[in-house]
Amino acid sequence: MSHPHPELGPPPPLPKGGLRVIPLGGLGEIGRNMTVFEYGGRLLVVDCGVLFPEADQPGVDLILPDYEQIRDRLDDVEAVILTHAHEDHIGAVPYLLREKPDIPLVGSRLTLAFVESKLLEHRIEPFTREVHEGVRERIGPFDCEFLAVNHSIPDALAVAIRTPAGLVVHTGDFKMDQLPLDGRLTDLPGFVRLGEEGIDLLLVDSTNAEVPGFVTPERDIAPVLDRVFAVAERRIIVASFASHVHRVQQVLDAAYEHGRKVAFVGRSMVKNMGVARDLGYLRVPEEDLIVDARVLDDLPPEQVVLICTGSQGEPMSALSRMANRDHPIRIVEGDTVVLASSLIPGNEAAVYRVVNGLTRWGAKVIHKGNALVHVSGHAAAGELLLFYNLTRPRNVMPVHGEWRHLRANAELAAQTGVPRDRIVIAEDGVVVDLVDGVARIVGKVPCGYVYVDGLTVGDVTETSLKDRRILGEEGFVSVFVAVDSANGKIAAGPEIHARGSGIGDEAFDDVIPLIEEALASAAADGIGEVHQLEQLVRRTIGRWVNEKYRRRPMIVPVVVEV
Amino acid sequence: MSHPHPELGPPPPLPKGGLRVIPLGGLGEIGRNMTVFEYGGRLLVVDCGVLFPEADQPGVDLILPDYEQIRDRLDDVEAVILTHAHEDHIGAVPYLLREKPDIPLVGSRLTLAFVESKLLEHRIEPFTREVHEGVRERIGPFDCEFLAVNHSIPDALAVAIRTPAGLVVHTGDFKMDQLPLDGRLTDLPGFVRLGEEGIDLLLVDSTNAEVPGFVTPERDIAPVLDRVFAVAERRIIVASFASHVHRVQQVLDAAYEHGRKVAFVGRSMVKNMGVARDLGYLRVPEEDLIVDARVLDDLPPEQVVLICTGSQGEPMSALSRMANRDHPIRIVEGDTVVLASSLIPGNEAAVYRVVNGLTRWGAKVIHKGNALVHVSGHAAAGELLLFYNLTRPRNVMPVHGEWRHLRANAELAAQTGVPRDRIVIAEDGVVVDLVDGVARIVGKVPCGYVYVDGLTVGDVTETSLKDRRILGEEGFVSVFVAVDSANGKIAAGPEIHARGSGIGDEAFDDVIPLIEEALASAAADGIGEVHQLEQLVRRTIGRWVNEKYRRRPMIVPVVVEV
Repeated sequence: MSHPHPELGPPPPLPKGGLRVIPLGGLGEIGRNMTVFEYGGRLLVVDCGVLFPEADQPGVDLILPDYEQIRDRLDDVEAVILTHAHEDHIGAVPYLLREKPDIPLVGSRLTLAFVESKLLEHRIEPFTREVHEGVRERIGPFDCEFLAVNHSIPDALAVAIRTPAGLVVHTGDFKMDQLPLDGRLTDLPGFVRLGEEGIDLLLVDSTNAEVPGFVTPERDIAPVLDRVFAVAERRIIVASFASHVHRVQQVLDAAYEHGRKVAFVGRSMVKNMGVARDLGYLRVPEEDLIVDARVLDDLPPEQVVLICTGSQGEPMSALSRMANRDHPIRIVEGDTVVLASSLIPGNEAAVYRVVNGLTRWGAKVIHKGNALVHVSGHAAAGELLLFYNLTRPRNVMPVHGEWRHLRANAELAAQTGVPRDRIVIAEDGVVVDLVDGVARIVGKVPCGYVYVDGLTVGDVTETSLKDRRILGEEGFVSVFVAVDSANGKIAAGPEIHARGSGIGDEAFDDVIPLIEEALASAAADGIGEVHQLEQLVRRTIGRWVNEKYRRRPMIVPVVVEV
Repeated sequence: MSHPHPELGPPPPLPKGGLRVIPLGGLGEIGRNMTVFEYGGRLLVVDCGVLFPEADQPGVDLILPDYEQIRDRLDDVEAVILTHAHEDHIGAVPYLLREKPDIPLVGSRLTLAFVESKLLEHRIEPFTREVHEGVRERIGPFDCEFLAVNHSIPDALAVAIRTPAGLVVHTGDFKMDQLPLDGRLTDLPGFVRLGEEGIDLLLVDSTNAEVPGFVTPERDIAPVLDRVFAVAERRIIVASFASHVHRVQQVLDAAYEHGRKVAFVGRSMVKNMGVARDLGYLRVPEEDLIVDARVLDDLPPEQVVLICTGSQGEPMSALSRMANRDHPIRIVEGDTVVLASSLIPGNEAAVYRVVNGLTRWGAKVIHKGNALVHVSGHAAAGELLLFYNLTRPRNVMPVHGEWRHLRANAELAAQTGVPRDRIVIAEDGVVVDLVDGVARIVGKVPCGYVYVDGLTVGDVTETSLKDRRILGEEGFVSVFVAVDSANGKIAAGPEIHARGSGIGDEAFDDVIPLIEEALASAAADGIGEVHQLEQLVRRTIGRWVNEKYRRRPMIVPVVVEV
């Protein structure tokens, strides 16, 4: 298997007739998926999503793919194909379109509807081209064919891209539920046909490559929900993702069966389910099944179902606030809460905090750890093996995963007989060229994290985050001194303020004489440059804090001349 | 089931002849276990452990039980019984003994050896009383009997405490491995005997109450390790807890079978395994099996096993540093890493970061997610059901768990027939009295988190942590202005410094005129009090940052008069 060498340099020019693949996000992480295909000087982008920050990226709202590499080539972009409407595939579209609003967006009906509703908030009206499974059409030099795939959101697509360099297939996110709720199967016959034609490069979803076997059908959740609804004494509150139309469908069906009314809670849930219902993706069994959350108080608790977000323990979500008794809906003994969702790695502590909070107030909490109330949206190892055997690709490039997932997926491809030297494990920024039927790593382009914080994109840097980590762990001590420019004597201060250091302001009385002494001796030595004095103050107080408390808060000295 | 009412007041005096139970840690969290039993004015403490901080407790090193409640009664403490030597049961002993070094410690041989080695680092020589299973002896008014329990550390004990108020049994941490490596079974006949005598109050480990069935025997890991060792091409690196003597034993045995030498890496691993070996708890099959880590370079990689800590992704551990190529041991293609340990909830992101890093350098990483290389140390639901049926307690109090665990354990007790009104779900600080054979919640005492940070205990407060969270998420902006005390005019500044805010210092040029204007107009209005001027500066800059960036950094204004 080919791996990116750590000292990989910039790629050479793309040979004529070759196809270049540049992952700008999504390889080495689960999130911010974005892959650029280049042929004949033209670019085709597949997906443009966001990554959610981890604990070591504090204060960051979102992380974007790094499209610096194509920023001065946006005119070359023929289109952005969106495989499906999950945030990690569409979330960065508003930021890309901010730079060039007329890049066409290509996707299925529901995908485009969700994207357009998101872009509306950013006041962007995009150029869209709706496609569906079975469609084959040229996008510049790229001859694109779309195939149905089943995933945890309706209307997801895979894309086959033909150029003279060969046939490239990108699965998007997919699994092989053989009893999908909407009857729309992953088009395995279509993939077989592509395999027979000869797939030169197959890019495959790696998310569940470490999970053995096959993913359980979504439909198997129904009897579990049925049992939950049958025994629930009071309100039922179901938390799920705001895009999981089929999961919500199953909750609606269960509510209908058990004579309960349903209210959606939370902006994104209300909005998306409105769109899905309008377009016919969400079927409401009875017109008045869905009610406004405000009328719930008039209904007996045993006739109520709430569907909300917050299944990942997001602190501002309705569910977290219910767990903290900081929400109009007050959890009481007998309420049932169902977390009908995955538990994204990294969110465990937050989710269990919510579970504990709800439990403390008396709720019975049902989650994937104690009942089958969630199935994954991504093909597990058994499905991937089947997929490789059905398609017999010449080259394979695992995508959509952290290193552990990419490598596990590569291993599966190898086990089905794909030659190991035709399996390319790349990561963000690693450039892969398909030339003469062989895919090879040829270089690496810079590809960092692009942080969105508040209204700014890219202003928060790794340096800011390092500062935040120090501040968050240790707090800071600011020291202000005004010195007389005439004689170097202290005119005001030292004024010392500490926050987050766990050291009270009055404790600093001990260090003030040391600072005064240091400044006096500097004055005597003729050291008067402000920057030097600041360093002196920093060293004096830093040493004192470390010796006395074994801590290293950020020291911020300000010396001014008056 | 009785729950603590949120508005529970302080407890009434303990009725004569009654026994009081005060959990000062460990109920509502997994960690800092400490339970105080009071009878006839005397106190007996069971365990005194630490809790490790979560992401929302940044910079904190450790969290202690809150023994404020007994601080002025330390003379009444007869002893601290330590059920076993895990950090969450012994880690706070040095801090308690710092306040009163002559409180006797009671525990088994290995437990005391681990505690003494820890106390040595704190330069405390404790008063100890070694006990073992089968021992029954008086500790003040408490007639204590010790029973063997099996856990993920050797030599663990449960304790039965008899007073005229009744028979109370505390399981400590336990499971029911029927094929334990050391042949030392959980003494179920002993517990049956206590049950026949009549257990008035049973305090039971709740950790795995949500997990169905029985925990797999530790021994079942051996064949898995054997397969790993049989196919490993180069070095094998095993990460585990430094106290898991039996897990390390199994690795030693596998290494011996496969002709590899073993080196321990990391201070706590070297130290604990030295103690365990000296006392005969760790059997080394061949004298020269264990070598110094420094001689490993002279051995071929296929004859090497390293045993280290770092299985929880601790950033400073050898394993994390190997994953970052920041350690003398450089991971290469063909190395095998085994995480032979649990994955403590909340550590997932850190652990997967290490797994991804190791994978990226070419290591094959085996962990509990893809092989049976770990079994839990805590009884699962099946074992707990069996335990309740064997002991038939009159009152049950789930301990050692978050709310979700306590409640699940309570449910198991109820299912075996313990009357629901005899099951007490308490949390830290909730006082339970056993009077006339009935356990009841009678009140609540304050019981906060006590934070250790550097050399200080308790100086870091919830306020410091709130500041740290703001600083960590948003950074800060400090503004310094010196005003002339004569006329209120600016004598120096405004000097603005921002760190972690993602706003460059030069961007603040725009707000300086606004500050100057605000101060001038204050001067014109005769507002000259420093505190008022600071508020004015804070408001001016806060509003500007929020409008321009939609952020809320901490604003630290300093106004001085010169």
